[in-house]
Amino acid sequence: MDFKALASRYKTPLFIYDFDHISAQFNSVKEAFNARKSLVCYAVKANSNLSILKHLANLGAGCDCVSVGEVKRALYAGITRYKIIFSGVGKDDSEIEFALKENILMLNVESEAELKRVEAIAKNLNTTARISVRVNPNVDAKTHPYISTGLRKNKFGVDTDTAKKLYIYCKNSPFLDPVGIHCHIGSQITDIAPYRDATAITAELLRSLKALEIDIKFFDVGGGLGIRYKDETPIKPYDFAQSVLANLSGTDVTIVCELGRFLVGNSGYLLTKVLYEKQNGTKRFVVVDAAMNDLIRPSLYSAYHEIETVDKNGGGSLADVVGPICESGDFLGKDVELPPLEHSDLLVVKSAGAYGFSMSSNYNSRPRAAEVAVKDGKDRLIRARESFEDLIELEKEYLKKDWDE
Amino acid sequence: MDFKALASRYKTPLFIYDFDHISAQFNSVKEAFNARKSLVCYAVKANSNLSILKHLANLGAGCDCVSVGEVKRALYAGITRYKIIFSGVGKDDSEIEFALKENILMLNVESEAELKRVEAIAKNLNTTARISVRVNPNVDAKTHPYISTGLRKNKFGVDTDTAKKLYIYCKNSPFLDPVGIHCHIGSQITDIAPYRDATAITAELLRSLKALEIDIKFFDVGGGLGIRYKDETPIKPYDFAQSVLANLSGTDVTIVCELGRFLVGNSGYLLTKVLYEKQNGTKRFVVVDAAMNDLIRPSLYSAYHEIETVDKNGGGSLADVVGPICESGDFLGKDVELPPLEHSDLLVVKSAGAYGFSMSSNYNSRPRAAEVAVKDGKDRLIRARESFEDLIELEKEYLKKDWDE
Repeated sequence: MDFKALASRYKTPLFIYDFDHISAQFNSVKEAFNARKSLVCYAVKANSNLSILKHLANLGAGCDCVSVGEVKRALYAGITRYKIIFSGVGKDDSEIEFALKENILMLNVESEAELKRVEAIAKNLNTTARISVRVNPNVDAKTHPYISTGLRKNKFGVDTDTAKKLYIYCKNSPFLDPVGIHCHIGSQITDIAPYRDATAITAELLRSLKALEIDIKFFDVGGGLGIRYKDETPIKPYDFAQSVLANLSGTDVTIVCELGRFLVGNSGYLLTKVLYEKQNGTKRFVVVDAAMNDLIRPSLYSAYHEIETVDKNGGGSLADVVGPICESGDFLGKDVELPPLEHSDLLVVKSAGAYGFSMSSNYNSRPRAAEVAVKDGKDRLIRARESFEDLIELEKEYLKKDWDE
Repeated sequence: MDFKALASRYKTPLFIYDFDHISAQFNSVKEAFNARKSLVCYAVKANSNLSILKHLANLGAGCDCVSVGEVKRALYAGITRYKIIFSGVGKDDSEIEFALKENILMLNVESEAELKRVEAIAKNLNTTARISVRVNPNVDAKTHPYISTGLRKNKFGVDTDTAKKLYIYCKNSPFLDPVGIHCHIGSQITDIAPYRDATAITAELLRSLKALEIDIKFFDVGGGLGIRYKDETPIKPYDFAQSVLANLSGTDVTIVCELGRFLVGNSGYLLTKVLYEKQNGTKRFVVVDAAMNDLIRPSLYSAYHEIETVDKNGGGSLADVVGPICESGDFLGKDVELPPLEHSDLLVVKSAGAYGFSMSSNYNSRPRAAEVAVKDGKDRLIRARESFEDLIELEKEYLKKDWDE
């Protein structure tokens, strides 16, 4: 990756995505499930750029969406509608209505109250809603508490008894068609055991539904496959697939999985320029032009991102890599070993493809960074850098108005 | 505040700002410094909405800006240029150039490296840069580590010895005019002692500069005055002013302060609608249509916000108030006592005027909320709700492009 040329062409801070790496990651999962009917979905929330969605659509991916905005993005980018799943604990009526009208594959329902609203809206539209129920298997994914989702104390899904009750309810409703079953226990998981446990619990429910003549077609095992940020040993797609398949012998369900970070996390880089070196007492700071508004993971999840120099080697000392934002929570890395740096030197923050741009904000009135894709050695813009005009676009007309108008 | 009418008129989630409360807060600070020449600045990062800036401009406020985007906002909203200060640890060359060309009051410089760049750019423009130096007094503000800024281990400012050196450097440069001195020790401060200590240290430096015939005109005591979120006892503006003035007898500097949260924090409300009630085991969840993308403070700083019902009373039980975003870190309140709630009931998240909208994002492809101002019992929109089209505006044209073009 020619970071220097990219910085010169597109300026910094800049998100860069390696589309060939995304392809390789996607194909490795697809192959792992080769022996079965499978649908590999992309968890749009990891990075919702339209060109990334289109790239994945071309590879055959479906999409796991958690808002109507994500469903619209998926459709806009060319994801086939029968490969789109709509999950999430808080679907608004208008979102449910949109999904039903667009006839996507299924709505993944997370509570009894939601199921009743889906039914009411389907009835109103005189249609039948294809749904799955998200089962909360009460399994500890052993990840950061903010991204663990499979415990009873989390807001997600319903316990297996409640799920069964909901499926029976669906069976008796002309407006609900229970086609799927779903569980998702968290994110950045590097331990295979929780997957095995969660799948076993969900597969047991699947079999008991079969006995009730509720014919589930899609078994959605969720996502959450971890990646290497520092020294983690990620689960191999093959092992992930085996942990699922082991619990599904004798069934003919289509296996669905929803991977976000695994597909795009290590495909992305945040390129940033050094503004100043600064020494406060014994503490060394490297102030760069990217900040917590671009990448909030270090601050929000105490996440580690590898940071490397471009075109600069040699021995160094430890420094905090910080942004221009006015709070001490604005850092990209702490105690990073770096050589002496000068104004305009470049640093690359790695593993920035997932939960980077998608969580970015305009805090401190900072325009969001541009995004660039690289494929077969060619690069092109996939999202323009925001301008000051973009920032005030939805405010400026109201500035002129008086109270008495 | 008629929340029900506002929800019906503008939909939810919705930020509502009480402009009369902003006026009262501003005037209380202005009056506290009545005995001296003073400039009360607004720290734009707290909430940068143009109409809020204009309202404060009409009250006579200046602006403390931490990016060129904030400087542009201040100018656009009608803040007088000689009341605009540009602070921040990471100013880019183009930002410095813009500020010098616009002839704002001063640039608040945070490192030696930055001072040299300001000098070089001023020289290039054949002008003289009015600057202040941010002194890091190494005083513990006893606040959340992410928003504490006055310690040696923080990235902000320079120690007093370095500051003195920089002032002497300025004195000898035809391109630098040291007109101000500055310290700012953190945010949400409720203890007066750190202010007294920081001001004493900075005032001592001021006097030693005077002895060197470096004539400082503006003494910027920063901001950080805390507000009541839960049971804090905020510092009264009068006591704040006295803690500053006590250290400045015999000097004739204009006192500058920069308040953000204090002016707008408790003037703002985040209004949200209940989507579902949900019980997972013994745990009660109220799922609402606002989320961590609207208000990240609970998740990022473990911040407390009072949450109240609208038009619904009576006994209740403890519930977590959570949003639709797909992570467990998405909560607005934990263990909030609430009566049983139904779909479409309204909840108000209080103290949401500062670091609410300004830190909001499009995570999960959620459009950012609308913003409304209320003054003298009248309400009006000050920022339109984002649409799906706004979200894809900077991406869509690149979707059509092929790699071979």
